[in-house]
Amino acid sequence: MKADRIYNFNAGPAALPVDVLEEIQHSFLNLGGSGMSITEVSHRSAWFDDIINDAVIRAKRLLGIGDNYRVLFLQGGASMQFCMVPMNLLPDGRSADYVDTGTWSSKAVKEARILGKQVDVVASSADKNYAYIPDNIAFNPEAAYVHITSNNTIKGTQWHRFPKTAGVPLVADMSSDIMCRPIDVEPFGLIYAGAQKNIGPAGVCMVIIREDMLARVPEKLPSMLKYTTYADKNSMYNTPPCFAIYTVQLVLKWLEETIGGLDKMAALNREKTERLYGYMDSTDFYRPTAELGSRSMMNVTFRLADEELETRFVADALENGLGGLKGHRSVGGCRASIYNPTPLEAVESLVDFMKTFEKQNG
Amino acid sequence: MKADRIYNFNAGPAALPVDVLEEIQHSFLNLGGSGMSITEVSHRSAWFDDIINDAVIRAKRLLGIGDNYRVLFLQGGASMQFCMVPMNLLPDGRSADYVDTGTWSSKAVKEARILGKQVDVVASSADKNYAYIPDNIAFNPEAAYVHITSNNTIKGTQWHRFPKTAGVPLVADMSSDIMCRPIDVEPFGLIYAGAQKNIGPAGVCMVIIREDMLARVPEKLPSMLKYTTYADKNSMYNTPPCFAIYTVQLVLKWLEETIGGLDKMAALNREKTERLYGYMDSTDFYRPTAELGSRSMMNVTFRLADEELETRFVADALENGLGGLKGHRSVGGCRASIYNPTPLEAVESLVDFMKTFEKQNG
Repeated sequence: MKADRIYNFNAGPAALPVDVLEEIQHSFLNLGGSGMSITEVSHRSAWFDDIINDAVIRAKRLLGIGDNYRVLFLQGGASMQFCMVPMNLLPDGRSADYVDTGTWSSKAVKEARILGKQVDVVASSADKNYAYIPDNIAFNPEAAYVHITSNNTIKGTQWHRFPKTAGVPLVADMSSDIMCRPIDVEPFGLIYAGAQKNIGPAGVCMVIIREDMLARVPEKLPSMLKYTTYADKNSMYNTPPCFAIYTVQLVLKWLEETIGGLDKMAALNREKTERLYGYMDSTDFYRPTAELGSRSMMNVTFRLADEELETRFVADALENGLGGLKGHRSVGGCRASIYNPTPLEAVESLVDFMKTFEKQNG
Repeated sequence: MKADRIYNFNAGPAALPVDVLEEIQHSFLNLGGSGMSITEVSHRSAWFDDIINDAVIRAKRLLGIGDNYRVLFLQGGASMQFCMVPMNLLPDGRSADYVDTGTWSSKAVKEARILGKQVDVVASSADKNYAYIPDNIAFNPEAAYVHITSNNTIKGTQWHRFPKTAGVPLVADMSSDIMCRPIDVEPFGLIYAGAQKNIGPAGVCMVIIREDMLARVPEKLPSMLKYTTYADKNSMYNTPPCFAIYTVQLVLKWLEETIGGLDKMAALNREKTERLYGYMDSTDFYRPTAELGSRSMMNVTFRLADEELETRFVADALENGLGGLKGHRSVGGCRASIYNPTPLEAVESLVDFMKTFEKQNG
């Protein structure tokens, strides 16, 4: 850990690679010899063109995305996608299947229904407080798409195999686990991800959309709410969030050049997860809340014996330079978010602290 | 000018105060002793609460905004407001008056009509290529609101007195001149401004909304497209664009504490404008395109004898450390954008260069 910095286990906005932060800091008054800050260069300049084009190329290369997809940058976060997806991809008279695995899935359902769209919740893990990912789901072969939340930040669960949908396009909110591992993109009609967990800062949402989905976009939508607007103009119909896209570009560069791609990233993420769950499984003092087989590699949720002890745990951890361990306000408990940028040494420090805390309070 | 920096006359994203850039750079790995970057702190933290609350308080104080208004931060820029304004404030069965003063006004009209809303263009300066601001407009006293674009970046015109609308709420796109001068906010039901010209970086849009406008918001809109969602949650229904809001906060602090408020800012802006127009009015070599009385204090648009000379002017200026002087791609010519952060010495350098260029090419 660098002097004055903490290990940051926030759920999002979350830790970024220190290398990336230092590059931004270094270039902040003069981006690439432009004599301007990234916050000052025109989005219609060669400097910014290079940035956004490099971000797209790296995203495609990292995920092995085919030429039949477009990588776009939008504003409004995943929450805006909850309405844009059905507006664009779910025609009146058809229905979409949604799998409910927690808070964010439920919000996606709610926003589609506000639009008057026909949404069928074909599976839910609400019966066990969302502690697992449903399996053996009967999808409607006529559905316009199947919507899932690939990782659930609040409940600490993650899809480890994506469901088979017999050709119905998958649409996934991957805000909290995009690029944490290699995936087969082909079954996905659309992937969206608010950047502020795994790939950047708050203020930009990556959308990966297949061309047959673009063909579904209705003519009569406001320009800013149509995927085609962004696809037609390389995400620059209007001024894009330049700083956030620049940071994403640097994180993707770090993923490729420092980490070495998504296979290596996944191996590192597995190692981090095994250290943390491995230790917790060896004691009764900490109790992971997600079921085995559904545990998230990104958000490790756990409880201690009581709330008073949890509060002390979070406070003592912060005093030891380990921040952001409080669970989401809607569920309580503790949570260590260990996204891509969280280094192994942060997890090791956390496990060391957990052992000490257990000794003192067990 | 600092070593390695240029004077930046970009129309947006545009120059920011060097003091602000340096403060961001200095704090970038450790915001206020948090041990985290502004890109890493949780939006549910005391650190970010202090930032967003300070930004709101400063905006209200600078503009003299009453307690019956809310200051909100949204994503999607002014372009998203082109659809949100009529969605939220223009009920079916009523109409709104729009004044067409150029590209951005025309887009606002277009987006409202895409929604099927009744829009009446009650005045336009299209007859003279938008070189002036219309006067003596007959507004519909039954209109839901009157929409204007307070400053026109592309055409270089600006409203110097806002129209009297006999109680019909004004709605203004102030993206390119917000906080350039004191204004009376009371006639405005809503003001919106993409930050990337006068008050910050791209990626955040300030919305100032009067409470009676909030009461108009229909129940059945997607959450992210309702002003009430942002008003109810202090702009943090979902993760806000933290970095962009932080930068806005620092620019507003600079406006208050370094410049000394909007009266002083307006005096400085007038001085910059007078230097530039004053010189151009003394020669035939440079021809301002906006009519006297409608000239913008923010975007000074002008032509030279022919396009070849204009191209050389822009290129020579850049070689002399003066960037961004090309006119908008839709109209050509030259444009010097001199927003709040542009210092007087930048304008003086530009005028000196213009004199030299005239001598060499006149």
